[in-house]
Amino acid sequence: MDSFEENLDEREEMEPTDTDDDIDIRGDPASLPPTLYVLELAAGVPAATVDWYISRVQGRRRTGGAELLVSAQPQLPGKGLVLHLTASRIKLLETAERMELRKKDRDGYLRDFTCAELDEFLGEGGVDGLLTMCEKQRIVLHELEHIRARSAEHQLPGYPSIQLFPGQSVTRLLLQEGIIAQLFPVHDTAELERLGKSWYAALFQRQPFEDIRAYFGESVALYFSFLGFYTTALCGPAALGLLQLVFSVDTLHEYALYSLFNMLWVTVFLEAWKRKCNELAYVWGVMDKTQMSFLEPRANHRGEMVRDEITGRYMPYYPRWKTLLKLYLVSIPVVVVCLFGSFYLMLVSFWAEEYLTLHRDQYGGNLAAVLIMLPSVIYSVVVLVLNQYYNKMTTFLTEWENHRTQKQFDYYRVIKLALFEFVNSFMSLFYIAFYIQDLEMLRGQLAVMLIIQQLVNNFQEALLPIVIRTTYSKVQEKVVTKLKEHKLTRKLFESRTLDAVDADDARVRVRTLEPDDPRVQDVSEQLQLEPYPDTSDDYLEMFVQFGYAFLFSSVFPMAAFWAVFNNLLEIRADAFKLCKVYQRPPAKSVRNIGAWMPAFEVLGFVAVFTNCALLCMSPALRSLAPGLTSVEWVVVFVLLEHTLLALKLTLTQVVPNVPYWIRKAIASHEYRVRQQLHRKRRRETRHRLSRRFSSKAAAVAAIQRPVSFQPDSGVRLRTH
Amino acid sequence: MDSFEENLDEREEMEPTDTDDDIDIRGDPASLPPTLYVLELAAGVPAATVDWYISRVQGRRRTGGAELLVSAQPQLPGKGLVLHLTASRIKLLETAERMELRKKDRDGYLRDFTCAELDEFLGEGGVDGLLTMCEKQRIVLHELEHIRARSAEHQLPGYPSIQLFPGQSVTRLLLQEGIIAQLFPVHDTAELERLGKSWYAALFQRQPFEDIRAYFGESVALYFSFLGFYTTALCGPAALGLLQLVFSVDTLHEYALYSLFNMLWVTVFLEAWKRKCNELAYVWGVMDKTQMSFLEPRANHRGEMVRDEITGRYMPYYPRWKTLLKLYLVSIPVVVVCLFGSFYLMLVSFWAEEYLTLHRDQYGGNLAAVLIMLPSVIYSVVVLVLNQYYNKMTTFLTEWENHRTQKQFDYYRVIKLALFEFVNSFMSLFYIAFYIQDLEMLRGQLAVMLIIQQLVNNFQEALLPIVIRTTYSKVQEKVVTKLKEHKLTRKLFESRTLDAVDADDARVRVRTLEPDDPRVQDVSEQLQLEPYPDTSDDYLEMFVQFGYAFLFSSVFPMAAFWAVFNNLLEIRADAFKLCKVYQRPPAKSVRNIGAWMPAFEVLGFVAVFTNCALLCMSPALRSLAPGLTSVEWVVVFVLLEHTLLALKLTLTQVVPNVPYWIRKAIASHEYRVRQQLHRKRRRETRHRLSRRFSSKAAAVAAIQRPVSFQPDSGVRLRTH
Repeated sequence: MDSFEENLDEREEMEPTDTDDDIDIRGDPASLPPTLYVLELAAGVPAATVDWYISRVQGRRRTGGAELLVSAQPQLPGKGLVLHLTASRIKLLETAERMELRKKDRDGYLRDFTCAELDEFLGEGGVDGLLTMCEKQRIVLHELEHIRARSAEHQLPGYPSIQLFPGQSVTRLLLQEGIIAQLFPVHDTAELERLGKSWYAALFQRQPFEDIRAYFGESVALYFSFLGFYTTALCGPAALGLLQLVFSVDTLHEYALYSLFNMLWVTVFLEAWKRKCNELAYVWGVMDKTQMSFLEPRANHRGEMVRDEITGRYMPYYPRWKTLLKLYLVSIPVVVVCLFGSFYLMLVSFWAEEYLTLHRDQYGGNLAAVLIMLPSVIYSVVVLVLNQYYNKMTTFLTEWENHRTQKQFDYYRVIKLALFEFVNSFMSLFYIAFYIQDLEMLRGQLAVMLIIQQLVNNFQEALLPIVIRTTYSKVQEKVVTKLKEHKLTRKLFESRTLDAVDADDARVRVRTLEPDDPRVQDVSEQLQLEPYPDTSDDYLEMFVQFGYAFLFSSVFPMAAFWAVFNNLLEIRADAFKLCKVYQRPPAKSVRNIGAWMPAFEVLGFVAVFTNCALLCMSPALRSLAPGLTSVEWVVVFVLLEHTLLALKLTLTQVVPNVPYWIRKAIASHEYRVRQQLHRKRRRETRHRLSRRFSSKAAAVAAIQRPVSFQPDSGVRLRTH
Repeated sequence: MDSFEENLDEREEMEPTDTDDDIDIRGDPASLPPTLYVLELAAGVPAATVDWYISRVQGRRRTGGAELLVSAQPQLPGKGLVLHLTASRIKLLETAERMELRKKDRDGYLRDFTCAELDEFLGEGGVDGLLTMCEKQRIVLHELEHIRARSAEHQLPGYPSIQLFPGQSVTRLLLQEGIIAQLFPVHDTAELERLGKSWYAALFQRQPFEDIRAYFGESVALYFSFLGFYTTALCGPAALGLLQLVFSVDTLHEYALYSLFNMLWVTVFLEAWKRKCNELAYVWGVMDKTQMSFLEPRANHRGEMVRDEITGRYMPYYPRWKTLLKLYLVSIPVVVVCLFGSFYLMLVSFWAEEYLTLHRDQYGGNLAAVLIMLPSVIYSVVVLVLNQYYNKMTTFLTEWENHRTQKQFDYYRVIKLALFEFVNSFMSLFYIAFYIQDLEMLRGQLAVMLIIQQLVNNFQEALLPIVIRTTYSKVQEKVVTKLKEHKLTRKLFESRTLDAVDADDARVRVRTLEPDDPRVQDVSEQLQLEPYPDTSDDYLEMFVQFGYAFLFSSVFPMAAFWAVFNNLLEIRADAFKLCKVYQRPPAKSVRNIGAWMPAFEVLGFVAVFTNCALLCMSPALRSLAPGLTSVEWVVVFVLLEHTLLALKLTLTQVVPNVPYWIRKAIASHEYRVRQQLHRKRRRETRHRLSRRFSSKAAAVAAIQRPVSFQPDSGVRLRTH
């Protein structure tokens, strides 16, 4: 056997007991456990490939298989084969141990699951209720991704041009090549109903975070936690804003105090969230996620297949300098061009507004009022549209850069998004505040952008998908059909079918479900849904809203109030989206909100800058000390801003990121583990060392008992 | 047995084999292993206490003893008993395993030492050469500190007023009460000679970091690594400064470029040091030091003895709010008063200088020149003297605050030191730069302060200790004797002897060394030496030098050159100090330079501020764009400074703190460990689950072999 074969997780020597399933394989599909995962193959995949893949999915571990249980839906014309995947109880428990899934044992203590201690983890649900559906789905995905090419296999059956490398992940390859069209976990409609009742259907209830996490995984749950925490925290500034509106006081003190309060609030909020995030990570058991990124690059990472020195498998290798080159020579210039383009559009909108204002007398009073508003409204809409396209472009660019780890990919994508969003959404406000220096205009612009953006976003998220799904897909289909028929564009669609070997109508060996099986209906519906894009679009919205609410807070105190109002809708809309509009996302385990945290922190710093600047520019503050020259005012700004920044940074350093009780719990756990280990080792060690190093004479004579000392071998102590 | 007794590490059930020593206890002290630790008891300690303590030090673990080997020096009149402590081979190896000492095994791989794998760690030195002297001393100290009071003991024998709590560390108590006067590890003179040859005696050799670490521990070695790294890095700015001096060019470009280069250099240096520090921590095996601070507070922490819930022992407990109250209500005001005092002194020195300059005509030319220089020289000296007293005060204040962990103590002490040092050393420069706005004067002041401080420091460190040791101690003794005799001050000295029980001339049971034993002579010399204060004084010097070299770098380009020159001396002086002037410090395991890192980083930020300000104030730059108003210049400053700060922060975020090869090595190690664990568990798990969950029918029939599928149970694949 190849030495690397020994490293393959699935390799195993002769197993005396073959059977481990309590399922009669050839029997009735109805005896199968409920479907966990759905896999749709592309249309036109040759039977050889399908057969080979299915045999690997079902196969024994000894032969490199995933040991999952497969059944197929009746195939529809023009569509690929749809497989239902599930696993036996033994397989699930075994792999849960392999993946070191963290479960709560009977004492409520969260630790790595092991089959040896199975009974300590059993709760009310018994063995079948031990793992949640989400965990079972993670296990199935884990096993699918760990189907690896063996050293004897050189090409993909049915596709002689696609080479296979030893240890390569087969499922990933099929996904990349488009042979697998869709792969997603199934929704549990009963659970969704229950979740919906306590989530988006509930009006004043706290979000059921534990249930969200149990169903959707940590990434989604963390987003909703963040959203909920942020909205609750916003109530402070919102209340103050309301007070200001109600009492209509317009003094200096108000402005200054409100600005200072907001700047402080931002820092406190961010620090409090870091702590909360660590708390959640600890409670959910993802806090000390080991860095496996060295060992498995992200799914879409492409490169020359090279044998990894650590694991012995073949993995894609792409030199980092190439990625950085792509980043610095192409991506950054492109992003900069987009930034400037957005900036220019903003200037155009201002010039248009100026032009219309100048020529207002040419139109009637009402018409003029509408026309003058038009540029900013159009600009807001254009901003939104640009965002969509830019968003897609960032995904494309960052994929093209070909980063190795998911963390790097997310980081660079978020940077692109945040930068553009910053210019797109905030540059007009900066322009008005610091160039035109018109506070009234600033307030107007802020209000328009905030309110329009929020309305459009909510509409887009909640209603548009439904509208699209009905009308747009029909339109898209018609367009695509036309393109396929036209001789110029036909090639684009033809090349999608890889140079497959044309097999006869070969039989593929897998059991079939009956057409009236409820599972078939269920899955067919879910096949039509869109896959859930990741949470970054949602974070981006919050990022923009955060900026609107705090960069120029003293000018538009009601911003926070509108934000709260929006977010209450947002939570419901996002929840509804996840439950009803999209396919179930594969659960992602994360321990913080990733690159969005620095993005929000940067906004916090910029907020200090803008608020101080607005303060020092405001006539109210200037009237307080009319004697100071402009130079001195700027110096005042510099000193004030630096002091606040220093305060911010100090607070960041002084407040510990991990709450005390967690650090204590971790230390306590480590201590217990150590004590156990030492107690076990102590007696063994003493005996072992005695046997090795004791001399005979010492064994007989030297029992170290101070009592048997002869007095004259002691010392007379001087005590003065 | 008490339940907490079970938690005590030293508790053990009946041991069948008593003997483990290959030493004949009652025999010739010459057969003892070399002395590792020296313990001097105070004069006048009653024999009951001494006897009790020695029996604990020598005693069996079963009875709560440390199982060390003790011998005593002949006692001198008026002095307390001096004990030589060492340990047998078995004891050392056992405790090394208990402490999870990290050693390199035969493959060069650093891991926790275990006695079971003893042979894998043996090198050329055999079993006795396995542990270095430093490690043996750490083991002895560990065992001493782990001598705990047992539940039956209620007071300290010989001191009825001193209460004992179960689980309390006895040695710490004795140190706090002054019953133990000194406790330090012995120098290895042969090793020191060898170290000295390649360290301070070598002129152009790289410091022998590995040897320094093997002798003095990680804390000291890290300081010297930092010093060496910093000095090497300083050569860049020093070379540029030399070039400027040689070519005497005084243009704008020069200033601007030099400033920018320095600001960049500071950031690059700090980031590079973080990486280097992590590298060293990894190579020395201290990188993942677990946070034991929860379990053992620092030695001088005082408080109400409360039973700890984690370990079951009694430990001092002092509410954190009390510490914070002391900090905010007393320490901070005191420090602020000192800061203002220092600031005021600086103003006085300037006024004096102004006064003398005004009245210069009253004196002769030469006398006038000297007199005018006098205030700044006197001020520099006063600054140094103030530092000494302030230094002692910070230690006193921070001790009084009573922090629980060493990390907190260091942090708050460093903050006090750094703040005062900043005002003391730099405020005059800020005043000249931004208030008087006289660049020539700035240069002069900078040169004077830099050079005088460096000279005095070097003198003080290398020569003064020797001078003091001879003259000062005699003076001090005379003074103390006079005070003891004077009836007013006698009480101060009398109360030092605690209300000890006056015992008869009781015998204390310990073996004695002969007066002509070389060990006695050796240790007697070392008893006279001063204990080594920690590295914070040395870091403070570097902190001040760093500020001088970079805060106003464009004004005095030669500062870096002088700094390099000084540091080359400094390294030798500090090394000499450690080897010849002080007692051997107990080795401290640290993984970075602690609170000094943020202190240097803050200086880096301030450097950006000052350099940009100087640039924007310099007439050379202003001549470039004479049209700009003052306001606009300040705005330019703001923009320039913010851009540079943003760049700095970005660099900090982008550069990973842990070098790639280390992250890879750690991931690789974790992967290997995991694979081992899984391979071991895999087969057991399958068998276990099969036995539990397989049904009989399945065992007979359901062998999942796809080959035996009947064709008609498959599916006909549509491939178009």
